[in-house]
Formats: sequence, structure tokens, C-alpha cells
Amino acid sequence: MTAPNRATLWGETLVEELIAAGVTGVCLAPGSRSTPLTAAFAAHDGIETFSHLDERSAAFFALGRSRRLGEPTALVCTSGTAAANFHPAVIEAHQSRVPLVVLTADRPPELQDSGANQTIDQEQLYGDSVRWYRTLPEPKPEGRALRSLRVAADRAVERATGTPPGPVHLNVPVAKPLEPTETPGDVPDGLNERAPLGVEGRAGPFVRTTRGRPTLAQDAVESLADTLAGADRGLLVTGPTNRPTPSRETLSALAEATGFPVLADPLSGHRFGHDSPGTLVCGGYDSYLDAADAWPAPDVVVRFGASPTSKILRHYLRDRADRQFVIDPAGGWREAEFTATDLVTADPTWLADRLASRVADRLTERADSPVDADWRERFRRAERVHWEHVGDAVGTEHFEGAVLSTVASEAPDPATVVVSNSMPVRDLDRFARPRSADLTVLGNRGASGIDGVTSTALGAGSATDDPLVLVIGDLAFYHDMNGLLAVERCGVDATIVLLNNDGGGIFHMLSIEEFDPPFTEYFKTPHGIDFEPVGDLYGLEYAIVEDLADFEAAYSDSIESDGTQIIEIRFDADASHRTRERLHERVCSAVR
Amino acid sequence: MTAPNRATLWGETLVEELIAAGVTGVCLAPGSRSTPLTAAFAAHDGIETFSHLDERSAAFFALGRSRRLGEPTALVCTSGTAAANFHPAVIEAHQSRVPLVVLTADRPPELQDSGANQTIDQEQLYGDSVRWYRTLPEPKPEGRALRSLRVAADRAVERATGTPPGPVHLNVPVAKPLEPTETPGDVPDGLNERAPLGVEGRAGPFVRTTRGRPTLAQDAVESLADTLAGADRGLLVTGPTNRPTPSRETLSALAEATGFPVLADPLSGHRFGHDSPGTLVCGGYDSYLDAADAWPAPDVVVRFGASPTSKILRHYLRDRADRQFVIDPAGGWREAEFTATDLVTADPTWLADRLASRVADRLTERADSPVDADWRERFRRAERVHWEHVGDAVGTEHFEGAVLSTVASEAPDPATVVVSNSMPVRDLDRFARPRSADLTVLGNRGASGIDGVTSTALGAGSATDDPLVLVIGDLAFYHDMNGLLAVERCGVDATIVLLNNDGGGIFHMLSIEEFDPPFTEYFKTPHGIDFEPVGDLYGLEYAIVEDLADFEAAYSDSIESDGTQIIEIRFDADASHRTRERLHERVCSAVR
Repeated sequence: MTAPNRATLWGETLVEELIAAGVTGVCLAPGSRSTPLTAAFAAHDGIETFSHLDERSAAFFALGRSRRLGEPTALVCTSGTAAANFHPAVIEAHQSRVPLVVLTADRPPELQDSGANQTIDQEQLYGDSVRWYRTLPEPKPEGRALRSLRVAADRAVERATGTPPGPVHLNVPVAKPLEPTETPGDVPDGLNERAPLGVEGRAGPFVRTTRGRPTLAQDAVESLADTLAGADRGLLVTGPTNRPTPSRETLSALAEATGFPVLADPLSGHRFGHDSPGTLVCGGYDSYLDAADAWPAPDVVVRFGASPTSKILRHYLRDRADRQFVIDPAGGWREAEFTATDLVTADPTWLADRLASRVADRLTERADSPVDADWRERFRRAERVHWEHVGDAVGTEHFEGAVLSTVASEAPDPATVVVSNSMPVRDLDRFARPRSADLTVLGNRGASGIDGVTSTALGAGSATDDPLVLVIGDLAFYHDMNGLLAVERCGVDATIVLLNNDGGGIFHMLSIEEFDPPFTEYFKTPHGIDFEPVGDLYGLEYAIVEDLADFEAAYSDSIESDGTQIIEIRFDADASHRTRERLHERVCSAVR
Repeated sequence: MTAPNRATLWGETLVEELIAAGVTGVCLAPGSRSTPLTAAFAAHDGIETFSHLDERSAAFFALGRSRRLGEPTALVCTSGTAAANFHPAVIEAHQSRVPLVVLTADRPPELQDSGANQTIDQEQLYGDSVRWYRTLPEPKPEGRALRSLRVAADRAVERATGTPPGPVHLNVPVAKPLEPTETPGDVPDGLNERAPLGVEGRAGPFVRTTRGRPTLAQDAVESLADTLAGADRGLLVTGPTNRPTPSRETLSALAEATGFPVLADPLSGHRFGHDSPGTLVCGGYDSYLDAADAWPAPDVVVRFGASPTSKILRHYLRDRADRQFVIDPAGGWREAEFTATDLVTADPTWLADRLASRVADRLTERADSPVDADWRERFRRAERVHWEHVGDAVGTEHFEGAVLSTVASEAPDPATVVVSNSMPVRDLDRFARPRSADLTVLGNRGASGIDGVTSTALGAGSATDDPLVLVIGDLAFYHDMNGLLAVERCGVDATIVLLNNDGGGIFHMLSIEEFDPPFTEYFKTPHGIDFEPVGDLYGLEYAIVEDLADFEAAYSDSIESDGTQIIEIRFDADASHRTRERLHERVCSAVR
């Protein structure tokens, strides 16, 4: 490597090392200060580049890509408020454990607090939301500094992909010249010969990283297996994660060994993709657990992933579970009801695998009936009742849940489905029936924000050959409308289902509904936007469908065709909410 | 005040006190956790409310309103990433000294790091970018806590409007019930009688605040006056501020007393609005100071406001000024060339007033010619040359500067004009001729970001009866397209001039232009967006004009008519830049 100046050398070294460490994609927003990084990424043929114009959308796109891939995506911006626009996505990545390598270009330190243009205090800009933070030294064309830069790049990737994964932040001050302009003397002659290790690096990453995973001592495993094998009524609860946790295979083995029903959040990787008859995957609990008053309580619950989307499930566990294990590889406590009894810091797949075989051994030895057969049957029957009622409602009532039900049931196998927060994820939770199809369902449930959802979806789409479906409410659609530019710029093919109920439908679920004013103007916030011109603005096909039959047709057409289509379907939020309530009551009555 | 529960009592008390302390407007984004605040603001008839759907735009709207008014605007959002979306505007407010009172609703402390929904770490979310930060206690229905809440509200407003003004952040944790639901026992009976001071407050603010301003001792004023009166060649340089600093009247008095030319940044409040023949307001320096090699150097420069937009002016001062005073009321050092010799911490209007009279006294006594008459004449002549050439170019060449020149020369008196960063503000600097009309020209020059410009403009427009003009490039327009929703929701009437050169024209000024790739794809980033559908999307009139004559007609029509019009005019960024270069050379040759 012979660089025309020190900034170019520094940028190329950093970029080369990040790629050697395993970064395969980068989102770049235009700017001058970031020139050494951008030029180096653009010139390297070992990485996929995505050019964005709005840093907020860029960051969520990177988040979506990383979430789908399970690998870090790099993010580059210039100095100033550009970096603050990354903040929402950095927080979401932190809380939902998505690896990101955030590179913010910065002015050199002497310009801090001097009134220099586009100069802000970028030190620790994201507070505790990053796994690792460093302001790098200014470019130094000498051996130790270059080696330290390579080590920093490798460590950044290691921290981003650690346990738990998350964002890391490298703040990169750099002085002019920023462009690859020949600057005699800026890089000393003979640097390559004097410091080949820093300049050239090594074959592969400069520091190879080997990551351990938390495993338990044998006696801890045996003790856990005893508890599970001794239980009459157990549950496995899988909350939101970025990929099936534990793996589908080991969860299935554990479910079969214990006989426990699996209450599978739609974002857990377990609602869909299981096809073993011995694994009872439940998806209707958000209805029928409200009717479980007369059921005996579970004596043991094993929880994986984050806190479930379903409030009814969370409250059920709060009030009924005597023994409740939170299994988390990072020792995280994602259980805001504070009634879980055990925190187990261990790799979920490793642990499920061990427990499955230990429990199977014990139950073979156990003389009495392995588990309370009625217990499993209650769930099986409640599921049947729930899905029958859902099926009836979907066929007859115009409500938002019918779309989510259809999106899931008619999605191709495989598919990647992204849902926005507020009602779409809740409707998916309640109305998407478990299937064996390999659906990867993703949402931003770390901080559950309304922001960046379209970009997250398109980023996920950039990382897979699956057909991509986004289901999004009108407020979330409006919030990240800028994200649609990535359809063309980043070449993503998507089916975007826009549920338009003209405002915040979720507020109908809250008692502020009873107070109007201020309900309509400040909470529901109807905007009256006709979104159809968005199709012209971004060159996307746009269809407004009237009913579910038309929706089904448009949905399957879109999935089968190239290009990105937006399918809008309009609802009255209040009416949808009343339908949900009636259906819930009917299911609960039938289960009781 | 009898509140149905403690959260409502807390919200109403806080809001009532903020309004008593002088907050006259609030931007509200919908959310559940912020219900006690939103409901209280909505119910109070002493404040103007603006409902927004995108928190990033909401924050910039508040910034624009505060910048135009010089008074704090409150901002309310729910918990989670909503608060992070405020971050870019908070940084801009910090750096450009705009008062904001940021209220972020938060979950109660026991839910921190527990996996609870929409719960993030909001403590010190904006780092050092706020003047004052407090996480309030949870709502407590008792006397001392309520008095402390009132004191906190008054102090927040005091800090936000202090020296320098800026954002303050109150993080407001609150537990359910959030709605004004009758909750017996939640507020103790008889609280009003036991703690009337906390519950009812006082007539006017609970704590009246009286703010001093920094003034100098008499001998320091005399010494400064000696220096100015003894100078043969002086300059007054006024950089960007939010309102004329010092006041126009005192600056004019100082200019007349000293005879110094005023080099007035377009954002300084002094490029426009002066009509005294004794005050030589210069606006062409960004051209002709490059031709000042043969001129004698100034022996004293007095600088007010932030660092000037013009790099040519900054470098001129760096290389030529022997004695350079930075006058800043907050002791800020906004002089990134680091050649100023004196930092004077004093109120600029107070100081200019004192200096004007002291200098006038001295010059009356001074025997020799008061100042170098040639010096002033050089500037007068250079201005004449510059504006003649600009006039010729505006009439004959299709380049972006012609639009900025016309926007300023044809703006009604009074008018509020907002310009985006990158090229529009630079073109305004070079091509907008000083006029006596009362133009308030604003830009986000604190961090000079591309973000939030439309919202800033509409927020400014909400605070004035002036006709509002926004001049914005296509990248900035795209970045804050969501901000356009405020036109209808907040009832702002604007003329939006969209300079569309399909990407980042400023990069043609940088040497990265010579390296393509990556120049076009990653720096200039042409997007090819046809923005016309934006008119339909937001219900705005949209016109594309071909040349300056059509632009002038559309511009004056728009200013005279109701409603908001977008006037797009397209340019080739490269050609515009070459025109600027040629014109610059012509002016410099003529001046030399």
C-alpha cells in the first residue's frame, strides 16, 4: 500500500482491517470530513456499499441488514449532527443486540469548541448505548500507530459481535487533506519498509478473535434438568430475538423431551419453521391466556429471548409461574414483571441441547406419567379454538388483524417479514398462526420505536434472497418515508403493506381515548395524508385495495413480481379495535 | 387545582409553571408515556401548541420558533428513541444558542434495564449539549416535592434563556395511570389545604428570575476605546447570531463613531436593516478580500457573533489583523483560526453603546485625521465593483447565486428568510446585497447540518407575521421532507425555493471532485428524485420554473398569495460553480 497522504493511508488501513475482521457491508452518507473512509470503502472490492442521503435512515438500514444477517454492518458519516442522526438506531441496536460498527468522522481535536464549522462534541455521543467506544488518534504514518489502528478495528468487530452483540463507536478525527491528493512528505518515504506490519497488515485479520460462549458446570445442568424433569406442568416461552434462540433444532428437542408447550412470540424465530409433531408451538396465547383462570398454574417456565410482545402472556407469567428461569447468554434481565426466580447466564442453544438429553434420560427413568397430559391438551385445545375463531373473523370482518393473519399464512417459504411496532406486531402476535414455513420475522423491539421501520426492512431485504414483506402502520410509514429512497439506491425488492388508519390506532387501547379533547388532536393525531403520491415520488407501484380479497390478490401478485409495490389498505382504527375485543371475548368464552 | 391522580397533578403543575415562567409555545409528538404533559399543555389556554408526528422535525420546528422569537419553546416526547430523535436539534440549539426546554417522558426507575417496553437510558441523553439537566423525581403529591417541581421549571427556563441561551433537558419519569382518570387516594385528601403553595403556586412565576448581563469595569472600557480611537484602519465584523448583535442601533453608532466598515454576515442581523449613510455595511467581502493583497492590513478588528460564514473573510482576518477582539457575552471563543488577540466577555449591545460614545469623544479631541480615509474608500469602491459584477451576472447567467441575490433583493420589508447550509448560505453571503429592509435571515449555523432545515423555517414562520421565505437545496429538502407536514398542521404560510442540482453541489468546491470514482456515487450522490409529487403529498402548490425571469414572477406571486408554494428551479451544480469562480475572478481583477 502506497498512500498519497496520511489521511488516505489511515482510512485505507482502517477499512481494510474492518473488512479483514469480517465486515461485509457499509452504509455511507455523503460528507466531506469522512472522505478518507468513504473513498477507502468505495475502492475496496471486498465489501458491499450502500449510499444513503439521510443518516437516520442509513443507520436503520444498517441495523436491518445486521439484524437479518447476524453480522456487523459499518456506518459512516461526516462530523456534526449527522452523527446524532444515527442515535435512534444505535439505541435500538444496543437494546435488541444488533452488531453495528459506527464510524463518525471528526474534526481534529484543536478545533473542538472553537466555532469551527460542523464541529460538535462527538466524544461518547451515544453514551452507554455502545459496547465499545474510542476516539482514534489522528492519522499517524508510523508503525505502532498503524498497528494500533488495526487492533482497534479488530477489537471493534469483536465487541460488536460479542455476547451480547451491539453497536460500537469509533470516532475518527482527521485533518486535511482529506482527499487522496498526492502530498509529498506527508507519509515518510520508506514507511513500508520500516513498518511493513502496520502498513500491510497480515493475511486475514491482524488479530484473530476466538469467542467463547458461556456454558454451565455439569452440576448446574443436572440441577436444571432435575427441575424440568420433575415438573408436571411446564412452559417454554420464546421472546423476540434476531434469530431462533435457542436454535430451532435444540428448542424442538427440549420441547419434545419435556413435553412443554412452546409459547412462541412471532419475533422469536419459533412461531414459524417448526414441523415436528412433538413440538407444540402455540401462537394464540395473547387471546386465551385471559381465560386460564381455572387452569392449574405452570410449575416451571423456561424463558428465552427478550420480553414477549404479549402483555397478556407477561401478566400470566407474572401471576402464575412458581419457578421461572430467564436464560440469557449475556446475563441480561429482560423481565419487567420482576417475578422470575432464576437468572441463568448460558448460551441458549448449548443449554437447550444439554437439557434436552438430560431431561429425556430422566423421564425414561421416571415411573409416573412424564408430564400432566391434561396440561398439554389444554393448550392444544385452546389453540384450536383460537385459530377457528380467527379464521372465521378473517373471512368476515374488515379489521387490521385479518391482514396480519393473511400476510403470515400466505407468505412464501422462505420469506422475510418485517413488522412495525404499535399495532402490526401485536396483531401479528395474536393473528399469525404457527406454520412450518421458514419465515424470518423481524421488528425493532429493542426500544419499540416508531422510527426507521422502512429502512430496517429494506436493510434486512438487502441481506437475503428471500422475498421481503414489510407491514407498517401509517404513522411509522410517514416517520421513515425517506427510507424508501433505498429501494432504488440499494436495489431492494419489497412488498410494502401499508395499514392506514389515519393516526395512532394504539391509543384506542388506552384510557386516554375517554378524554377528548385531547385524544383526537394530540394522541390519535389524524393527519389525513393521501400517501398515493409517494409511489410517484420514489418510482414505486402503488395500489389501494378495498377489502381482504383484493388484498390477497395484490399481495400474491407483488410477491411474485419484481420491483417494489406498496399496497395500502384503509381501516377505521376504532372499528378494528372493537373487532379485536369481540374476537378476544369470543375466544375466551369458548376456552372457558 | 384538584387533580384526579398524582401524574395529572404533576403534569399540570409542571406545565403551569413553565408557562408562568414565560414559555409560550410547545411542540408535542404523540405518545403514551407523555400523556400527563401533553394533556396539561393541551388543556392550558396560555400556550400555543404544535402537534408533530416526527420528533426530529418537531425539535427543529421548536428550534426555528425559538430562534426567531428569542424565547424558549418546549418540546415533549414519549420515552424511548423518540427522545433520541430530538438529539440533532438539541445539538444545533446548543451550538447556536437557541433556548429550548426539552421534556422527555420516561418510565419509572424500577423499569430501567429490565426489558420493559420503550424503556431506554435517558439520563444525560444529550451529554454536554444542554445547559441544565435533571431527571425529576416521580410524581409526589406533597408540598415540598411540588414546590421543588415549580422551582425546577423556573430554573429550567432561566438556564435556557441565560448567557448563552440554549437547550435544557428535564427527564420526567411517571408511572400509570397516565391519563386523567379518577384514582381515589392517589392524591391525598386535603392536599390543597396542607400545601397550597406547592399546589397553587404563586401569581406569576413561583421564582421570579432576574438576569444580570456581563459588563466591563470603566477602565477596561476606556482601554478598549483608546485602542479603537487610535486605530487608523479598523473593521467591525458581525458573524451569525439569532438577532442583531449588538443591536442595530448601537452597532450603527459604533460604526459611525469609528468610521470602520462593517463586514456583515448575512446571518448577523446587520447585512440588512441599516439605513444610516454613516454606516458602511459591506456584503461583497467573500469576493474581493481575495484581491486585498496590496491593501494595508487592518490594525484593529472587532468581532461580534459566531465565526463568519465566509472562509475568505476568516482567512483574511487570520493573515492580516494585528489586533482582533472577540466580543462574546458568554466568553465563548468562536474563532477557529486562533489568531484573535483579545477575548472580551461582555454584553455586545452594552459594550457597543459605551464604546461608541467613548470613541466619539476621543476622536473629537484627536488632532489628526480620525481614520485613514483611503481605508474606508477601498471598501466602498470594492463593494461597488462587486455589486456591479453581481448585477451583470444575475441578469445574464443561469446560476444558483442569481436566485439568492434575487431572493434578498426582492424580499418584502419586513420578511423572514431561512437558508439551508452548504451552498445556499454561501451564495447568500456572496450575492445578497445589503439593503435597508428589515430582513431577518436565519440558518442553522451552529453545527451547519443538512438536517431539519424545512422544520426550522416553518417553526420560525410560526413565530412571526412576516412573509416567510425558505431557500433550500435538494439534499436538505429531501432530508427534512417530513417537516412539510407542519405547513398544514401548524398553519404556516411559506414560500419555499428549492434549488435542485441533483445532489451535493458543494462537493464541486472540494478536490474530491478530481477523483471519480468515488466522486459521483458517494459524494455528489445524484438521486434523480422528481420532487413534484411532494406538492400532492402535502397539498402544496408546486411550480417548476426554468429561468430567473420566471422565478422572479413566481417568487413575487407566492409572497403575495396565501398558502405555501414550492418553487423549484434546476441547476447544474458544476456549471453554477464555474460561474461563481469566473465571477470571483472578474471581481478580484477589477478590484486589483
